[in-house]
Amino acid sequence: MKRIALEGKVLGENDRIAAELRQAFLEHGILCLNFISSPGSGKTSLLERTLEGFAAGARVALLTGDIQTDNDARRLARFGFPVRQITTAGACHLDARMVERHLREWDLAKLDLLLIENVGNLVCPTSYDLGEAAKIVVLSVTEGEDKPLKYPGIFRKAELMILNKTDLLPYVPFDVQTARENARGINPRIEILELSCQTGAGLDGWRRWLQGRMETARQRVPA
Amino acid sequence: MKRIALEGKVLGENDRIAAELRQAFLEHGILCLNFISSPGSGKTSLLERTLEGFAAGARVALLTGDIQTDNDARRLARFGFPVRQITTAGACHLDARMVERHLREWDLAKLDLLLIENVGNLVCPTSYDLGEAAKIVVLSVTEGEDKPLKYPGIFRKAELMILNKTDLLPYVPFDVQTARENARGINPRIEILELSCQTGAGLDGWRRWLQGRMETARQRVPA
Repeated sequence: MKRIALEGKVLGENDRIAAELRQAFLEHGILCLNFISSPGSGKTSLLERTLEGFAAGARVALLTGDIQTDNDARRLARFGFPVRQITTAGACHLDARMVERHLREWDLAKLDLLLIENVGNLVCPTSYDLGEAAKIVVLSVTEGEDKPLKYPGIFRKAELMILNKTDLLPYVPFDVQTARENARGINPRIEILELSCQTGAGLDGWRRWLQGRMETARQRVPA
Repeated sequence: MKRIALEGKVLGENDRIAAELRQAFLEHGILCLNFISSPGSGKTSLLERTLEGFAAGARVALLTGDIQTDNDARRLARFGFPVRQITTAGACHLDARMVERHLREWDLAKLDLLLIENVGNLVCPTSYDLGEAAKIVVLSVTEGEDKPLKYPGIFRKAELMILNKTDLLPYVPFDVQTARENARGINPRIEILELSCQTGAGLDGWRRWLQGRMETARQRVPA
């Protein structure tokens, strides 16, 4: 019981900071997205392909979380946009405090899009609001179509499921239709995009989704 | 600080129960293995192929952990060996108390091998001793060869890394040698087996490893 009360307190404090972050993003017209997936589902590859689609000078920045190593930050920095690594030193998720601390040195007035790559974990990051406009769950077709049923929390909270690695469909036992039905069974409103970061198939649809959401964020800035 | 102290207390209690379980397994000559991996790395498929290799009447049992659903238990029950599902209802890992509770109805004197499939999560299950003789980490080749560096905890604690889904090697950017070096860099003593549950390649080596460890467990029973 004590543990649950304490967990509640930790989450309450997290929600307070996340609400402040969300307000700051709103005021600056920044679209903030929180990418959550299993390790190895292709979050970093998706972000690489996403950055490729922006012209130099686009007002995009990234925070990338990992327990150890700054591999992802180095991969992502090649594209010339601001990137900061959040090394959690053991923690299995990002929290709002970590995001707030790593944003301090950046001028939010210079950003339109903030992409946050969470720690590879389909469970724990789900509970921690980072002030994002939307959570995006990335599922790769190698993981099995039952994952929405087995890890319902993130599929319930995500606005978008990206079904990644569709180039491997010929080689793995994965039924796309069943995966879609499983996700929609958990969250009838979830949007679903299929793509392959290896071949580039489906990336256009993803970029359109992103541009649409960025436009919405711009329009919502208080006068 | 309070949170860390409480976490320490929870882990202390877990370790106490795990030690009791380990002692019970030792006295009965039971080999207990704790399988840990990302969601979708193929733990359940590996267990299916493992059970196929045992004759009817072999003294094998399974516990399988999931946040939701008893899909895995149903998949595994087809082989005729005792299986119990542990549904964690949100928790991101199994703990020793859950194992202890689910073992109560079984007569340990009738078992030689207990396979425990943990919740799909490369982080949190690492911290919870279940009384097992060894942790086994399953990594699929679709996840990237950097995973031992990014999730060092489990690679440090595991005695064996099973590199699964080797049938997909022609289709994914994965360098086996680098993955091996990364794992050995974290844990120089880790054993490594490569296999494919789809094609069956490498399963013989895995069965030999298992038989060797079962033999050791039998020999260590106190007189």
